[in-house]
Amino acid sequence: MKRILNTNEFLHGGDYNPEQWWDEPDVINQDFALFKQAKINTVTVGIFSWAKLEPEEGKYDFSWLDEIFDRVEEMNGHVVLATPSGARPAWLAQKYPEVLRTDNLGNKRGFGGRHNHCLTSPIYREKVREINTKLAEHFGQRKSLVLWHISNEYSGECYCELCKNAFREWLKNKYGNLDNLNHAWWNTFWSHTYNDWSQVNPPSPLSEMGNKGMNLDWKRFITDQTISFIDNETAPLKKITPNIPVTTNVMAGNPLMDPFAGFDYQKVSKHLDFISWDSYPAWGNDNQTTAELGRNVGLIHDFFRSLKHQNFLVMENTPSRVNWHSVDRAKRPGMHELASLQDIAHGSQGVLYFQLRASRGSSEMFHGAVIEHRHPEQTRAFKDVTKVGKDLEKIRPIVDTNYAKARVAIVFSYDSYWALQDAESYSKDKKIWQTIQKHYRYFYDHDIPVDFVSPEDDFSEYTLLIDPMHFLMSKAYIEKIDSYVKNGGQIVGTYISGVVDENDLAYMNEWPKELQDIYGIEPLETDVLYPGQANTIIFKGKEYKTHDYCETLINCTGKVLAKYTSDFYQDTPAIVEHEDGLGKGYYLACRTDYDLLEKFYEEIASDLIPELPICKSSSKVSIQVRENGNTQYWFVQNFSDKEAKIKLDKELLDLIGGKKDKGEVVLKPFESKVYGVE
Amino acid sequence: MKRILNTNEFLHGGDYNPEQWWDEPDVINQDFALFKQAKINTVTVGIFSWAKLEPEEGKYDFSWLDEIFDRVEEMNGHVVLATPSGARPAWLAQKYPEVLRTDNLGNKRGFGGRHNHCLTSPIYREKVREINTKLAEHFGQRKSLVLWHISNEYSGECYCELCKNAFREWLKNKYGNLDNLNHAWWNTFWSHTYNDWSQVNPPSPLSEMGNKGMNLDWKRFITDQTISFIDNETAPLKKITPNIPVTTNVMAGNPLMDPFAGFDYQKVSKHLDFISWDSYPAWGNDNQTTAELGRNVGLIHDFFRSLKHQNFLVMENTPSRVNWHSVDRAKRPGMHELASLQDIAHGSQGVLYFQLRASRGSSEMFHGAVIEHRHPEQTRAFKDVTKVGKDLEKIRPIVDTNYAKARVAIVFSYDSYWALQDAESYSKDKKIWQTIQKHYRYFYDHDIPVDFVSPEDDFSEYTLLIDPMHFLMSKAYIEKIDSYVKNGGQIVGTYISGVVDENDLAYMNEWPKELQDIYGIEPLETDVLYPGQANTIIFKGKEYKTHDYCETLINCTGKVLAKYTSDFYQDTPAIVEHEDGLGKGYYLACRTDYDLLEKFYEEIASDLIPELPICKSSSKVSIQVRENGNTQYWFVQNFSDKEAKIKLDKELLDLIGGKKDKGEVVLKPFESKVYGVE
Amino acid sequence: MKRILNTNEFLHGGDYNPEQWWDEPDVINQDFALFKQAKINTVTVGIFSWAKLEPEEGKYDFSWLDEIFDRVEEMNGHVVLATPSGARPAWLAQKYPEVLRTDNLGNKRGFGGRHNHCLTSPIYREKVREINTKLAEHFGQRKSLVLWHISNEYSGECYCELCKNAFREWLKNKYGNLDNLNHAWWNTFWSHTYNDWSQVNPPSPLSEMGNKGMNLDWKRFITDQTISFIDNETAPLKKITPNIPVTTNVMAGNPLMDPFAGFDYQKVSKHLDFISWDSYPAWGNDNQTTAELGRNVGLIHDFFRSLKHQNFLVMENTPSRVNWHSVDRAKRPGMHELASLQDIAHGSQGVLYFQLRASRGSSEMFHGAVIEHRHPEQTRAFKDVTKVGKDLEKIRPIVDTNYAKARVAIVFSYDSYWALQDAESYSKDKKIWQTIQKHYRYFYDHDIPVDFVSPEDDFSEYTLLIDPMHFLMSKAYIEKIDSYVKNGGQIVGTYISGVVDENDLAYMNEWPKELQDIYGIEPLETDVLYPGQANTIIFKGKEYKTHDYCETLINCTGKVLAKYTSDFYQDTPAIVEHEDGLGKGYYLACRTDYDLLEKFYEEIASDLIPELPICKSSSKVSIQVRENGNTQYWFVQNFSDKEAKIKLDKELLDLIGGKKDKGEVVLKPFESKVYGVE
Repeated sequence: MKRILNTNEFLHGGDYNPEQWWDEPDVINQDFALFKQAKINTVTVGIFSWAKLEPEEGKYDFSWLDEIFDRVEEMNGHVVLATPSGARPAWLAQKYPEVLRTDNLGNKRGFGGRHNHCLTSPIYREKVREINTKLAEHFGQRKSLVLWHISNEYSGECYCELCKNAFREWLKNKYGNLDNLNHAWWNTFWSHTYNDWSQVNPPSPLSEMGNKGMNLDWKRFITDQTISFIDNETAPLKKITPNIPVTTNVMAGNPLMDPFAGFDYQKVSKHLDFISWDSYPAWGNDNQTTAELGRNVGLIHDFFRSLKHQNFLVMENTPSRVNWHSVDRAKRPGMHELASLQDIAHGSQGVLYFQLRASRGSSEMFHGAVIEHRHPEQTRAFKDVTKVGKDLEKIRPIVDTNYAKARVAIVFSYDSYWALQDAESYSKDKKIWQTIQKHYRYFYDHDIPVDFVSPEDDFSEYTLLIDPMHFLMSKAYIEKIDSYVKNGGQIVGTYISGVVDENDLAYMNEWPKELQDIYGIEPLETDVLYPGQANTIIFKGKEYKTHDYCETLINCTGKVLAKYTSDFYQDTPAIVEHEDGLGKGYYLACRTDYDLLEKFYEEIASDLIPELPICKSSSKVSIQVRENGNTQYWFVQNFSDKEAKIKLDKELLDLIGGKKDKGEVVLKPFESKVYGVE
Repeated sequence: MKRILNTNEFLHGGDYNPEQWWDEPDVINQDFALFKQAKINTVTVGIFSWAKLEPEEGKYDFSWLDEIFDRVEEMNGHVVLATPSGARPAWLAQKYPEVLRTDNLGNKRGFGGRHNHCLTSPIYREKVREINTKLAEHFGQRKSLVLWHISNEYSGECYCELCKNAFREWLKNKYGNLDNLNHAWWNTFWSHTYNDWSQVNPPSPLSEMGNKGMNLDWKRFITDQTISFIDNETAPLKKITPNIPVTTNVMAGNPLMDPFAGFDYQKVSKHLDFISWDSYPAWGNDNQTTAELGRNVGLIHDFFRSLKHQNFLVMENTPSRVNWHSVDRAKRPGMHELASLQDIAHGSQGVLYFQLRASRGSSEMFHGAVIEHRHPEQTRAFKDVTKVGKDLEKIRPIVDTNYAKARVAIVFSYDSYWALQDAESYSKDKKIWQTIQKHYRYFYDHDIPVDFVSPEDDFSEYTLLIDPMHFLMSKAYIEKIDSYVKNGGQIVGTYISGVVDENDLAYMNEWPKELQDIYGIEPLETDVLYPGQANTIIFKGKEYKTHDYCETLINCTGKVLAKYTSDFYQDTPAIVEHEDGLGKGYYLACRTDYDLLEKFYEEIASDLIPELPICKSSSKVSIQVRENGNTQYWFVQNFSDKEAKIKLDKELLDLIGGKKDKGEVVLKPFESKVYGVE
Repeated sequence: MKRILNTNEFLHGGDYNPEQWWDEPDVINQDFALFKQAKINTVTVGIFSWAKLEPEEGKYDFSWLDEIFDRVEEMNGHVVLATPSGARPAWLAQKYPEVLRTDNLGNKRGFGGRHNHCLTSPIYREKVREINTKLAEHFGQRKSLVLWHISNEYSGECYCELCKNAFREWLKNKYGNLDNLNHAWWNTFWSHTYNDWSQVNPPSPLSEMGNKGMNLDWKRFITDQTISFIDNETAPLKKITPNIPVTTNVMAGNPLMDPFAGFDYQKVSKHLDFISWDSYPAWGNDNQTTAELGRNVGLIHDFFRSLKHQNFLVMENTPSRVNWHSVDRAKRPGMHELASLQDIAHGSQGVLYFQLRASRGSSEMFHGAVIEHRHPEQTRAFKDVTKVGKDLEKIRPIVDTNYAKARVAIVFSYDSYWALQDAESYSKDKKIWQTIQKHYRYFYDHDIPVDFVSPEDDFSEYTLLIDPMHFLMSKAYIEKIDSYVKNGGQIVGTYISGVVDENDLAYMNEWPKELQDIYGIEPLETDVLYPGQANTIIFKGKEYKTHDYCETLINCTGKVLAKYTSDFYQDTPAIVEHEDGLGKGYYLACRTDYDLLEKFYEEIASDLIPELPICKSSSKVSIQVRENGNTQYWFVQNFSDKEAKIKLDKELLDLIGGKKDKGEVVLKPFESKVYGVE
């Protein structure tokens, strides 16, 4: 296999801001001594360093960063070099106010914060291109340079005149003329028909927030504007350092661990060589078990891994606690090692931290750090990090492996996600991501690798597609899945699917033919239940509760697997199986708890459960596989705070423990084993 | 009796926007075919159609609407024609920005949404007058034109300079000089004395929200400004089509089913020929029984009917679900028929829907519709609507009846409602409307017709007035009720009444003499209780809990019907009966649960219970009467999801069932019977 | 002792606005008759009276106020004269818009409300100086003038250009150059380095809210700007009437009874002769017992008394209810007397009300008043006030006493309070004030007088300092407490202390040496718990729960009084006692309930319990002492709604009851006794 990152070791280190301490050389000396002690081999530098790199316009000072490169190279380490666009110097904001954002009420933002730049401003793009060029020219040949980290956690929107005009141009380009736009946005509704392009504006609480087509196109525009911003950033890097891969760090929300949805990560990822993400689960909270949260984290690892269908990198996580949860609890003993090895297990090529040294002041001074303010070498965090550093050395051969190949994929479409969240119907919180998590659970619990796919991806390698709550489906997508099924694929669809087309306009007259072909039904009505209400269905002779959504189906030509037991749709189909060509469609017409899904997938997907040399006694033990050719590495991790037992069919070497296990093996609370299997 | 609407059938139909489908003639054809099938005889057109009617300034295109009129007339149907002022074309907003609103923070609104027009703008008024004139000239002679529907759900405020100046003029007109204004608003408080009219501004969080007189006058100004806007709309209609009645559709809130209070419906209704309202209860929610919600809907029907003391029209309701409740649940089987016949039972002259055909895109695409996106003729909604269409044909004779004459009236004053909601005292949520609902319940449960009256109405026809929480009473009103009682009327007053005069200034020194005359007491102190606290009273030997408000009374000259049992006002009067001339006043000094009110009204109002040929076994069965001369029609409706029994003294024809009933009759869940009685 | 107020009686009266009734002489006549009846001897006038005093620019009318002075002097009463800056006339705001505020989003406020003046505006300061000069010149020699009351409840901020520039000047003055500012605010973080003063702005949601140094300096600037505003107000008063003391009325929050923290009262109090405060506890609420709330009120009395370490004045309280609590419940019978005598018990020199006569309209018309709108002499409030008036006459000798000298002090630092509230760490609600209340409880329950001290105060007179959650400590403060302890003082410190220095920058490398000397430990990690989580400690053989925060300690050289019982820090120190020179430090590493604190203070502070001639049976009885030389007055107050017993060692005269008590004495619910002891 080809390495994505040019290194034969896992990256271990993280965000480092020596510029904050440049007048205190002792601090820098102490840092590098501690890096060595903690097996840190990587520093991520340059994020938010613009004011230090270019203290006055056109006057660059890279000397301090040269010295950091020198020191890293002395220790044979790696540098992840960030472009500084995530924050800008005060002089830049002051001289060129257009670089700052305007909010959707028309308020011009002032200097401050981060993520506060107009996505369109030509001046800002020029300034970013300039500094990126200088950085690439100056540092591009450093042997330690392993990765470009462009900007930081891209997010947000701008509503200035530049952005409004760019939106209009984008729409002109998409629709050609206003008639097409008026039709796509269904502007006859409420007399919103435009007769001049200048009448078109982005969504705003002061004008219009209810036009679904406008809202959806604005999200798509923000995606494309972010992409062109990224392309502008990467152009000089790609030109000057064509062999250094480029990433940016993406995000997931808390506490749900859902992907950031301010723009479309699936589209943006095509403009990056490599995906990295910032992982901040609230480990140890009082609402979930560690095993439950661990499953949600496993899922989002898989989601981000799937963006490019290759290994990725955890660019940030905390060695201990964050500074922005409702309660900033530190990881419990063992948790950091467990979570770090989970990163690797799901395909990460390293474990990086925010932050190597705690800032002395300002917003993030109390965010967990490898090196804390006082007695840094005595903290649990430092010891936990050191332990992980040693672990990563022990499992170094795994660098050259990939996450196991999946035969199951869950479909996720940003367009559909946005449109359904924005849909004025059903209920306020539609719990789309929680539904995905519920379906994922069966596969995770049964050690079945899962990919995520976008509607644009190639499905041909998958045996089974899970396609829940796919509200907005383009005609092209519908044809694609029909063809997928007819050629032998299996697909699971659910309630609230195939309702609107790519313009968020309702499919008329009947459900799209191809969906009827696949599922052998047509949804007629969605019975929406209040939280205190439920129905039940019978599946294989047992009753299961339904919540929130119960669709009634018509024109059923498939095999009815479950029926409703009460209300006006008593005895009508609730789950239907249908043959379509060589494949099958399964339609779940109602929302149930996991108990039903478990039984359902047991019926249709248990043949996907891998044959393991390892038998586990609890779903709180996660088993993930990385492989290269015939060699496999099994990450067996106990996400319970109690002991768990596994049984090995044959003797296997545990790379972490450094000894061979056989037969019944006891995993301590939060313990991980990494077995090599040939 | 004189018909208000010139038709001998109930209207059945609703909002229809064929302009959204004008390039798809098949859709229009399908619509009219389905209308016929569903017994739709009425379409409401033109709401929000301005951009289609006047695509460019001064260039009108009525051809499409001509065609709709033609089609409606082909089916001998009715057209309710709306003026389009509820939304305006983009070209109009762009060319004349003054027509859009400014909010109370000074933000100028952009084009978009609806209800987004300045109430004052001379240009907007001119443009509205023009298009209304054109519409009246063009369509005024169409035989199908049955009703003008001006604008849509008037609401909202504007704070632009035009409106500020209009407010100042309104105040000059009211007060004559600043001294009077300063006194009425009690401006010496906090040095708010004005010495120039230009210093006067509307309430704003950026300046002043605590001046009670200002807040109250602003509401009154908005009422008058809305009236003059309406008058401007109706002037050309009245001139060109003097025989076509004019309505606008008013609103009630959710979930409380309280009347919209952005301006004074009682005043505005004098400028309309006819009241129509948009009825959107959350049927089937998980907080209330259908019977409880049904009672609240019955009340608000009665409230809107009472605005003009004549029959009214349900201008909008949904055949299934809405798209803006917390959970958009569809009506359960039977519910739509039940609710539709309840409309008629309380005096509606038809059942109209929003919407006949579902919009394909934008904000309301998923609001329930007679014709849904897919398989429209198979939906429950379509079938339910068809059933109602048939019902309305069956009860067609009832068109020429009125709601039964009431001898009881509940007083409702917008001035008082606004002032008490704004009063900084007592507790944050004063539950005024819930109190009205609690009093109404006795009469509803006992089939006693109830009117609502404004302080300006004629009370002479009523035996009993209920006047709860009447905080602000003008001196004229106080004299009026005193005279009403002295002439033999009975009145029930409660805690927190007669506190301030028409300027929201406290009555000084003593409670107004006439109130003392009526009630034989003076309230001294209001003991305000926290939610966790209660007192009790003894009424007719039984204890009842009190909550929230317990007034202590002095100078009691009446008969004490109940006393408090504890606290510093133990053994003091809680309910007092007092003779005043030929009539009586009853004063309830404290808030109780319904249990007390039921016993109280049993004492004083049970003689108002009508002698019925129908005996019901449950308060979940509602009985309403419409009549004309000697003919009466009894709407007997079961709001329970269980069977209910009634007993008929004589054989009666059920117009819905088409057969005669006698003796014990079982009503199925949600079933309605309409008996004709001569 | 020297009198602070030149009067030999307690002030009894309050805010009075005769200008609201100037056209109704009967009202004024009635007022003064009722004042006499209710033993009112003081009126506070002039608050918000500017428009009446200067109806046009430069045209003054003091005649009405002359008449009030005359009337007060006729009754040998006192006048507290307010400067009118708390609200301004409309003409002033209109002519000089700069006097009104701008909010932190850049919105310019309009005329209205109160507290709506720019703190910087030179014009406003000049106008205030002018009117204050006129008032002092005109009324300064009136014999009834006892106190200047400047403005009213100072609060709030302004972000206009004048204020922004003043902030920049303040920063220049503090830091000298931008390098120092950049370092103190740790501006290298997120590239926030300034290279021009014009780049510096106050915190704003539109620019920056996360810079801790900026936020802290802004609060300090607001404090200094308020001080200079106050100095500007008092300059003419001090010059013209050097013998009349100057106060302003400060505030506490509801329901927590925490001091207002918009600026630093400790610093501001140095610019006042006298502290007065506005006391609005929610007596009779359904969340707390009266005894619990009474303790919190006792604490805040002590806090305000300690601002100048002398007697103070309750400038406002309500005789009955307020108009802004969630439920505006009136005081229960006995409560007003209890609360009023508590005021005196803790050092107040009077009991003043808002308001003597209820406003007839506008915002505060329903706030409780001595003279209500109707039947004023019959209200409970009027009777309660009269009773208190008589009480104050009975205890008149106590005027010339001070609150008992305290040997215990609780340290409170506004800088630390602000910084810790703003710290992004630990948990959102850090419950700092609740922690102070929990520590205070032991002393209150055991009748031990407590002072509050600022870090700048002299500690030498105290035996014991309580210093909880002292997050931000300047180096000077740390040295000061070390020296205090070494010289024999005892100090109790807790978790989350000594974390940052005066610039909100973390202490590096180790905990400040002097803190180690005092406490014999170093905190390493704070284990932050979710609400549903707990640990326990063992103290003197018994288990106690811990919540929220559990610090782990290192380098412990002291005596371990308690250890944790579980988790990774099981068996490590939780409470440590340590000798430092002649004194001792006690460190509580975790948050516990009061049960632990009671046992802890029993160990270390029970020798501070005063030897009393009175023995009480319940902690719901409060005992406070005022004294002068050998004479002591014991305020024994029953905060329970049940009877409570006390036992007197010797016969004592109860000044309230007017008779001598001995042996067992029963206090009725809410009853107070005031015993004189020589």
